[in-house]
Amino acid sequence: MTRARLRDLGAAVGSLPPGPHNAITDVPGVWVGHATVVRDEPTAARTGVTMVVPREGEVWEDYCFAGWFGFNGNGEMTGLPWLEESGMLGSPVGITNTHQVGLVRDALVRHSVERGVIEGFVLPVVAETWDGWLSDIDAFPLTEADARAALAAAAPGPVAEGNVGGGTGMICHEFKGGIGTASRRCVAAGETWTLGALVQANYGDRADLRLDGLPLGRLAGYDRVPSPWPGGREEAGSIIVVVATDAPLIPTQCTRLARRATVGLARAGGVGHNGSGDLFLAFATGNHLPAHRARRDVVMLDHEQMNPLFAATAEAVEEAILNALCAAETMTGYQGRTAHALPLEAVAEAWARRPR
Amino acid sequence: MTRARLRDLGAAVGSLPPGPHNAITDVPGVWVGHATVVRDEPTAARTGVTMVVPREGEVWEDYCFAGWFGFNGNGEMTGLPWLEESGMLGSPVGITNTHQVGLVRDALVRHSVERGVIEGFVLPVVAETWDGWLSDIDAFPLTEADARAALAAAAPGPVAEGNVGGGTGMICHEFKGGIGTASRRCVAAGETWTLGALVQANYGDRADLRLDGLPLGRLAGYDRVPSPWPGGREEAGSIIVVVATDAPLIPTQCTRLARRATVGLARAGGVGHNGSGDLFLAFATGNHLPAHRARRDVVMLDHEQMNPLFAATAEAVEEAILNALCAAETMTGYQGRTAHALPLEAVAEAWARRPR
Amino acid sequence: MTRARLRDLGAAVGSLPPGPHNAITDVPGVWVGHATVVRDEPTAARTGVTMVVPREGEVWEDYCFAGWFGFNGNGEMTGLPWLEESGMLGSPVGITNTHQVGLVRDALVRHSVERGVIEGFVLPVVAETWDGWLSDIDAFPLTEADARAALAAAAPGPVAEGNVGGGTGMICHEFKGGIGTASRRCVAAGETWTLGALVQANYGDRADLRLDGLPLGRLAGYDRVPSPWPGGREEAGSIIVVVATDAPLIPTQCTRLARRATVGLARAGGVGHNGSGDLFLAFATGNHLPAHRARRDVVMLDHEQMNPLFAATAEAVEEAILNALCAAETMTGYQGRTAHALPLEAVAEAWARRPR
Amino acid sequence: MTRARLRDLGAAVGSLPPGPHNAITDVPGVWVGHATVVRDEPTAARTGVTMVVPREGEVWEDYCFAGWFGFNGNGEMTGLPWLEESGMLGSPVGITNTHQVGLVRDALVRHSVERGVIEGFVLPVVAETWDGWLSDIDAFPLTEADARAALAAAAPGPVAEGNVGGGTGMICHEFKGGIGTASRRCVAAGETWTLGALVQANYGDRADLRLDGLPLGRLAGYDRVPSPWPGGREEAGSIIVVVATDAPLIPTQCTRLARRATVGLARAGGVGHNGSGDLFLAFATGNHLPAHRARRDVVMLDHEQMNPLFAATAEAVEEAILNALCAAETMTGYQGRTAHALPLEAVAEAWARRPR
Repeated sequence: MTRARLRDLGAAVGSLPPGPHNAITDVPGVWVGHATVVRDEPTAARTGVTMVVPREGEVWEDYCFAGWFGFNGNGEMTGLPWLEESGMLGSPVGITNTHQVGLVRDALVRHSVERGVIEGFVLPVVAETWDGWLSDIDAFPLTEADARAALAAAAPGPVAEGNVGGGTGMICHEFKGGIGTASRRCVAAGETWTLGALVQANYGDRADLRLDGLPLGRLAGYDRVPSPWPGGREEAGSIIVVVATDAPLIPTQCTRLARRATVGLARAGGVGHNGSGDLFLAFATGNHLPAHRARRDVVMLDHEQMNPLFAATAEAVEEAILNALCAAETMTGYQGRTAHALPLEAVAEAWARRPR
Repeated sequence: MTRARLRDLGAAVGSLPPGPHNAITDVPGVWVGHATVVRDEPTAARTGVTMVVPREGEVWEDYCFAGWFGFNGNGEMTGLPWLEESGMLGSPVGITNTHQVGLVRDALVRHSVERGVIEGFVLPVVAETWDGWLSDIDAFPLTEADARAALAAAAPGPVAEGNVGGGTGMICHEFKGGIGTASRRCVAAGETWTLGALVQANYGDRADLRLDGLPLGRLAGYDRVPSPWPGGREEAGSIIVVVATDAPLIPTQCTRLARRATVGLARAGGVGHNGSGDLFLAFATGNHLPAHRARRDVVMLDHEQMNPLFAATAEAVEEAILNALCAAETMTGYQGRTAHALPLEAVAEAWARRPR
Repeated sequence: MTRARLRDLGAAVGSLPPGPHNAITDVPGVWVGHATVVRDEPTAARTGVTMVVPREGEVWEDYCFAGWFGFNGNGEMTGLPWLEESGMLGSPVGITNTHQVGLVRDALVRHSVERGVIEGFVLPVVAETWDGWLSDIDAFPLTEADARAALAAAAPGPVAEGNVGGGTGMICHEFKGGIGTASRRCVAAGETWTLGALVQANYGDRADLRLDGLPLGRLAGYDRVPSPWPGGREEAGSIIVVVATDAPLIPTQCTRLARRATVGLARAGGVGHNGSGDLFLAFATGNHLPAHRARRDVVMLDHEQMNPLFAATAEAVEEAILNALCAAETMTGYQGRTAHALPLEAVAEAWARRPR
Repeated sequence: MTRARLRDLGAAVGSLPPGPHNAITDVPGVWVGHATVVRDEPTAARTGVTMVVPREGEVWEDYCFAGWFGFNGNGEMTGLPWLEESGMLGSPVGITNTHQVGLVRDALVRHSVERGVIEGFVLPVVAETWDGWLSDIDAFPLTEADARAALAAAAPGPVAEGNVGGGTGMICHEFKGGIGTASRRCVAAGETWTLGALVQANYGDRADLRLDGLPLGRLAGYDRVPSPWPGGREEAGSIIVVVATDAPLIPTQCTRLARRATVGLARAGGVGHNGSGDLFLAFATGNHLPAHRARRDVVMLDHEQMNPLFAATAEAVEEAILNALCAAETMTGYQGRTAHALPLEAVAEAWARRPR
């Protein structure tokens, strides 16, 4: 089955224009790398690691202002105390499976040691969603090498979506989910800024899925492709969102952006179920913050200029989720279970019926 | 023009059934009272006070567990430090205009003194949105008597919506806004609970307004009724949400409910603009908390039972906003300005075009 | 009885040098004004209003970065949602009695209207502690004129302490309390900064009072001057702390300063009793933030430079509390009740016994 | 050198009585286990893991209400999003070195899998302080076996202090630091409760160290035993505090307890330096919360009963820090560096000079 991105199908959400790759990598210097682990022996692994790497990898020594928001906290994101205290991000952002957040977190520490951070410490940010339905998560399938591979693979340009990296085994709105990304360009304070989002989407009920407000999940129904969980399932997973922008924001403003990821999630059909770890990180590259400067000159957009960036966040997150669903292919994994891809014809049909 | 509620028009949002009045007053013991101030001399006043009164007015001595969430904090809600510290609400909740939050807050204190709280103190919760486009807010039109009147008017049963109470002069999605309410019934832990929401809606761009995902604002356009601000307006106001339920929740869980109001707001088209005070309060009456007991036996639903209440919150908030828009009538006020009502035929037309 | 400041008695706390007035007004542009209301007819009033006014009163149009911390939230501080969302303070900071926070808050709004803020709004910061033991608080003794008088009285230079302004009727560690202030100078990033604190001190048990670690309260005992509440008293009041500095800090860093007020409070003997509203505000004048600029150039000290400012905050708050106690005179008020001043000879005696 | 506990030296802090072991294990069902790693080949390791295990190890299936507070967030504590969202702790609490938080966190996950948590997930709480001055932390000396060993060693009764477990290589107030514990009994709501604290103490300047207010650090000076960092050191480390009580508290109240750890820290001389991860966790065992119950009956003390527990927290944390210092022995480690023990005679001398 050939998969697609939402805009390949003629559909789109929001009104702001995307960047050239319609990806978080449209923000200059932001790279993405995946390590995908799919094997059946000795047991089924459908998992991986995704790294979002600011500043072409130099974020270890040139921090970004950052903020976060937990819409529903049934998940893990390491590094939060210092992120909140300092308003700064000083590491790539890893995303992986629930059981092995620690492994990936420590791998980033080791990488920093190898880079030459001597007698210091870093507090990396690594988040997770649970892929244990398709992947034998209790086998702890990842090794430190996988985390390193994701980091080594980080690159600018187009971003692989769907069943890749940390998103490999994820399920979203009862279809196969995974990694998705999108971007927007907007004007604030007389300049054009780029904002991108990357999601690891693993949440939601089919009935709630929306495409630009259209009840895509209900229109698609359960006939064409069945749900992984015919009888319903109490705890439907999580979504990690990473938002990046080149606008010059201070930490308070990054937190504001992170909170707007909720709007994108709600538009796509998220409610923040109890079992969901809906954790959102936003960072801004518009100020360079080299380590160990006593005094820094920084620029901030005024708060009154933030609305276009808020709109861009909502749109990019909404489209990133839909891109994850459009890109992910049907997958069979642990114990022979199958999660079916969102039928692309259902997307086209729904789009054709939108009121204009 | 005869106004209506959303369901009078044959439309609805969500899938859970509403309570008998489809109002926050469906939660047993929750009363609502309005004091509406509309006059043209000596200057235009289009304002008022709305009171949400838990426990038939006995909340002063029988507290409710409560929590709050600020999706965007460009507004005022008094009483937050103790609400957050204690997880308890010990006063009615007032909503009024931005300039006179203090007046209403102190009026509630005075009321508590008159009730007989001697040598003690209360920290009432009063919130606001800005009605200064239709009302000469700089004239400080309200008096303490208005706050008392709203409290005295509090009653169970149907709730007046639209241009009443604190919502009198409000504007929402560039239509006339104001007070709206809705409720839902849901099953959790084997029992049926009621959850209601009341909003004072004063936010948003017309292009963003949605009805069950339908782009109602874009479909309605600017032809039938013009926007109050033809050239656009940077700062579009605020929304206060009060959520009530009879479910037995602890404070942490009330905070979770409050956060879900964001989903209802996002579905209706809210983004959380910079100038918006999007402040949400949730309280739960399922546990009685009489003052000055050394030890309390309380009941809590398990977190795993919360999903129906989350869905109910999102639905009730979404419908409460739409009810405010459907109920509010066109109003002319300060300096001859007019805010037009949402054309009800636009609602019906949009609803007829929904994909099924 | 002639009262004094702590350093007049030969005592001191901390190791950093104070500014010329050892007051919050040592921070350039920070003014303080009091309105003190003491009368016995028709009922005993021992109350007032204190205003801390940044930027020589121009804070309405030239904001300060700011942050806050609630160590224990049994109190009121208005304006918190926007303070937290924006990281900015756009009004003077009022402190008054518990019942009339609203009055003072609305009075600041009216003042802003009179200054010429047309069709906009402000969300002023006003906090309180409870003076209802010495003052008939239930008579609501203040009027808007008192709030205006405090604002009009704001001036640079030495600050009246003890039974003045909002501190008039306050009780601290079972001695007469009230307003106190202190300042420190410190070096960070190669420059000297000034940091000042002002407290409205109305909290604490006598047994817990400390002077530079010395158990001053236990050494003073209950013999020389009795406690206002011989049998003990469950709820011992609150403390409001305002911290100001001319260092160039961003909002995140102001929040960090606010949190350090806890250290000063704990050193003086505070525990954060349940009934206490221990609310701390910190603002930084080092960056000018004129309203309505699309883009701002700001300076920030690096986080690694913050330790001297943290130490300065702790010291200034600790000494401000002791200054309040040393300055406040014995007061008799409502229902003939008396709160005795801290005996200054007890301070001298304790100081003489300190281990060196 | 024979080391001691503070009370062995005739000294003490606070006024509440300790429990039988003056340890966190006085709280029924709370166990502590250490794994200590001291070796010189192939490189110097002075590190380890400490586990605080509620409910005799059954916390995985019988949760505790819990809350946390970050006084200064330059550190890591995993599991915070769910702890904050749910107000519940569902794992033992690990404490280790900075680089290997992830290892210990994942080890707890693996342990839960082995216990039989199938197709579910846990979000364990593991915190850290930095021991890289005495230990070659960049060699990542711990293995998963160490985490398991700490868990397996968990037991009731007396708790080893000083250079053990996660505290092995820690430095506090420029003396050798590490693990310390203490407990208090107090009466609230007519019943006696036990509250204990355990700290991993690795923070602070010598000049700031206090013993019941006495300037112990200044009295001890730098003559008897030199500082590890003669020229001073910008970043002085962190402190992790775990508070446990058998009182029936709800999550909001656990957060309140956690915040009071700040008072104990401040009394002992902590300021919350920029480089410090001062992260405090509090849990309450008074309510049993077996997993997967739809509805729970719980008991809560009234907020008005909390003051004795607040005092107990402050005292237990203060004494736990001093116990860590009194117990820890002089240690030589990585690169031949030495951290000297606090001279016990300095404690006795200071105590003898206290004003009575």
